[in-house]
Amino acid sequence: MSSAAASPAAPAMAPAEVAVAPDMPAPTPVVELAARAKAASRAMAAASTAAKDAALHAAADLLVTRADQICAANAIDVERAIAGGTPAPLVDRLRLSPARIDAMADGLRQIAARPDPIGEVADGWVRPNGLRIERVRVPLGVVAIIYESRPNVTSDAAGLCLKSGNAAFLRGSSSAIASNLAIAAAIRDAVSAAGLPADALVLVEDTSRHAATEFMQQNDYIDCLIPRGGPSLISSVLEHATVPVVIDGAGNCHAYVDASADLDAALGIVVNGKTQRPGVCNALESLVVHAAVAAEFLPRAAVALDGVELLGDERARQSVPSMGEATDADHAAEFLDLKMSVRVVDSLDEAIAHVNDHGSGHSETIITADLAAADRFTQQVDAAAVLVNASTRFVDGEEFGFGAEIGISTQKLHARGPMGLDQLTTLKFVVRGEGHVR
Amino acid sequence: MSSAAASPAAPAMAPAEVAVAPDMPAPTPVVELAARAKAASRAMAAASTAAKDAALHAAADLLVTRADQICAANAIDVERAIAGGTPAPLVDRLRLSPARIDAMADGLRQIAARPDPIGEVADGWVRPNGLRIERVRVPLGVVAIIYESRPNVTSDAAGLCLKSGNAAFLRGSSSAIASNLAIAAAIRDAVSAAGLPADALVLVEDTSRHAATEFMQQNDYIDCLIPRGGPSLISSVLEHATVPVVIDGAGNCHAYVDASADLDAALGIVVNGKTQRPGVCNALESLVVHAAVAAEFLPRAAVALDGVELLGDERARQSVPSMGEATDADHAAEFLDLKMSVRVVDSLDEAIAHVNDHGSGHSETIITADLAAADRFTQQVDAAAVLVNASTRFVDGEEFGFGAEIGISTQKLHARGPMGLDQLTTLKFVVRGEGHVR
Repeated sequence: MSSAAASPAAPAMAPAEVAVAPDMPAPTPVVELAARAKAASRAMAAASTAAKDAALHAAADLLVTRADQICAANAIDVERAIAGGTPAPLVDRLRLSPARIDAMADGLRQIAARPDPIGEVADGWVRPNGLRIERVRVPLGVVAIIYESRPNVTSDAAGLCLKSGNAAFLRGSSSAIASNLAIAAAIRDAVSAAGLPADALVLVEDTSRHAATEFMQQNDYIDCLIPRGGPSLISSVLEHATVPVVIDGAGNCHAYVDASADLDAALGIVVNGKTQRPGVCNALESLVVHAAVAAEFLPRAAVALDGVELLGDERARQSVPSMGEATDADHAAEFLDLKMSVRVVDSLDEAIAHVNDHGSGHSETIITADLAAADRFTQQVDAAAVLVNASTRFVDGEEFGFGAEIGISTQKLHARGPMGLDQLTTLKFVVRGEGHVR
Repeated sequence: MSSAAASPAAPAMAPAEVAVAPDMPAPTPVVELAARAKAASRAMAAASTAAKDAALHAAADLLVTRADQICAANAIDVERAIAGGTPAPLVDRLRLSPARIDAMADGLRQIAARPDPIGEVADGWVRPNGLRIERVRVPLGVVAIIYESRPNVTSDAAGLCLKSGNAAFLRGSSSAIASNLAIAAAIRDAVSAAGLPADALVLVEDTSRHAATEFMQQNDYIDCLIPRGGPSLISSVLEHATVPVVIDGAGNCHAYVDASADLDAALGIVVNGKTQRPGVCNALESLVVHAAVAAEFLPRAAVALDGVELLGDERARQSVPSMGEATDADHAAEFLDLKMSVRVVDSLDEAIAHVNDHGSGHSETIITADLAAADRFTQQVDAAAVLVNASTRFVDGEEFGFGAEIGISTQKLHARGPMGLDQLTTLKFVVRGEGHVR
């Protein structure tokens, strides 16, 4: 896992209030930390909404109060990153400022303002024998998150886990360890001051590869593991994890411009999907155009997408000769950059097949005025989200109305698409009888 | 994985209509079979309820028509099992008869009679910007099931997968390979005759260990893997699988007899839970009794549980001196036999802690007349199903009203408790706009 490779152990910085385990010189063993998270998860499952919200507000306040300390810890990470030759955009992702800490605090307050999902009776019925059955929403227990670089994930993930009554068991990257420890210490202190267990947030201080593997194999303690990071992190999790996993996967998102499309709308959606924020998973990576409109649409798109490198198949390049040649790997790639593959198809069927064969199951949109085409595309394309005449950039927890999200799942089990608070819960059967036997 | 160890390759029996790949002398590579299942899953996702039900009825009819052939294939497995010294109860689980084949066919007809879960709009809303969002129930795609000994799983699993619009990708044990191939061939022929793809059911004929590991790692094709079998199968899956898994796990189910319990009701529930069918996962394995009623209840229980070996802690043995001594391993064991661990506790808290520490998260029941005790037990015990004054034997797909079940999940992601047709589906976001961009 690339993120854990740089430094085999936690750095030597550690003012007493920042360290998770101030009295221990060596990092606490992962299994011991996991057990502490599990114990705390029992208390969190029983915590009232008021207590959880108070803890979130206290954490927000303490992050702001300790902004200087957190920035000082962050400076250690930033200096090490620069000294190690980390590219400037990655250093920027790592860097904290009072404004960024305010944003983290606001994030926690917004989570506090969301409805509490715990305790909802999802459904219930009575069996012919009189047995009363209910399904009640309860926390997962210990939600483990392994993540790369950005230290704000420490706060966002902790907030979502706390609100949904879980204990957060976190393992960030070595590159952000000083920042992560400082943020975690503030949240732990605030949670504890608010009367909930500090171990509702446990951060693993050992950033070695070995500890990462141990982390993913705490089957006795972890109820759900969510990786947040690039392909190498995901494949490490698929290879090593033995606990249940929800994959926050890649997005090779397609826009298909149908023969009947309003080409102005198509242009708007393609430009928005590709350029509004190219580095995120719901950005467009692939453009598929029906042959009937390719000659008209593609030259206009090439102009509107000025600055985007287009890589097309032969027919796309006939319409836009300046376009590069696309390999099959380009059609399957998540560029996360100002780069897009282009394919011309002769039919809706061919478009659907191309999307299903090359997509990553994230978000796919059709631009069309044809009802039957819209219906077939939404039915037959196999992805977490399928859109009609809308930008893939809308596939997001905030845009869907879920509030903050812990990630966007591209797997089909448990959670598919944006994961908000509900996706950090599970349902428990509660069955009531009067001495019922079979 | 114990089930795959006996024979490294498929046996030499294979009348043409029984073989999955009649024109190939060597077993078809697992990856090729997986790709065929994936291709079929696309057609299955679009299949109408009528087409799926017709296929299920055709499969039921053909199983009955071919009962003699299937029994002949089964005789090969049974003879090999006897020759290999397989214990008689396991040989009995393996053995088919026309009556057992009729039962399999009835199972398929009952699945056909269930409502089709596919296409349900689970929820939907409109965002302030006018974007219309729906969550639609769709099949998982390829549901892989790896299972031991009993050949009826081939038919049950295929039926549930077909009805829920999935392709079933099955890998049974070497001990039942001839039976499984004969059953699969009948279902494939019937599905094909009903106009759906034969590859909606693909059975792996290679029963080697190597093929089992390959099977669990078909990430490009498998959407969900469900193991059905004992602890060694489950741990092999946890170790080797890289695809998303739902664990149909062990059941160390507890009954807690509270101080306020109606002891007659408690006796009925404990005897039913332990003895009605001791070999299944929702049978009782552990009895926890409040100290206030132990001296009265335990001697009565020991009489009522005549024939059950009881293993207790010191205080339990004071009430029933004939009781054996329980180790900590006994308190955590799933005996699947006429054997039960017994513990005396001083409080509800101690009972809850004992259940949470030793249970397997399956089904736990409290017998009590005290409302507050019932509420705390149902809230604080962490299990798929928590019962009040009812036998754990009710935790079952049929008893809950789901119809046939594919298993009982003891994990918290996706499906928890009995898994019926709904748990073989996922939700897809369908988002409609009118040229919406961010």
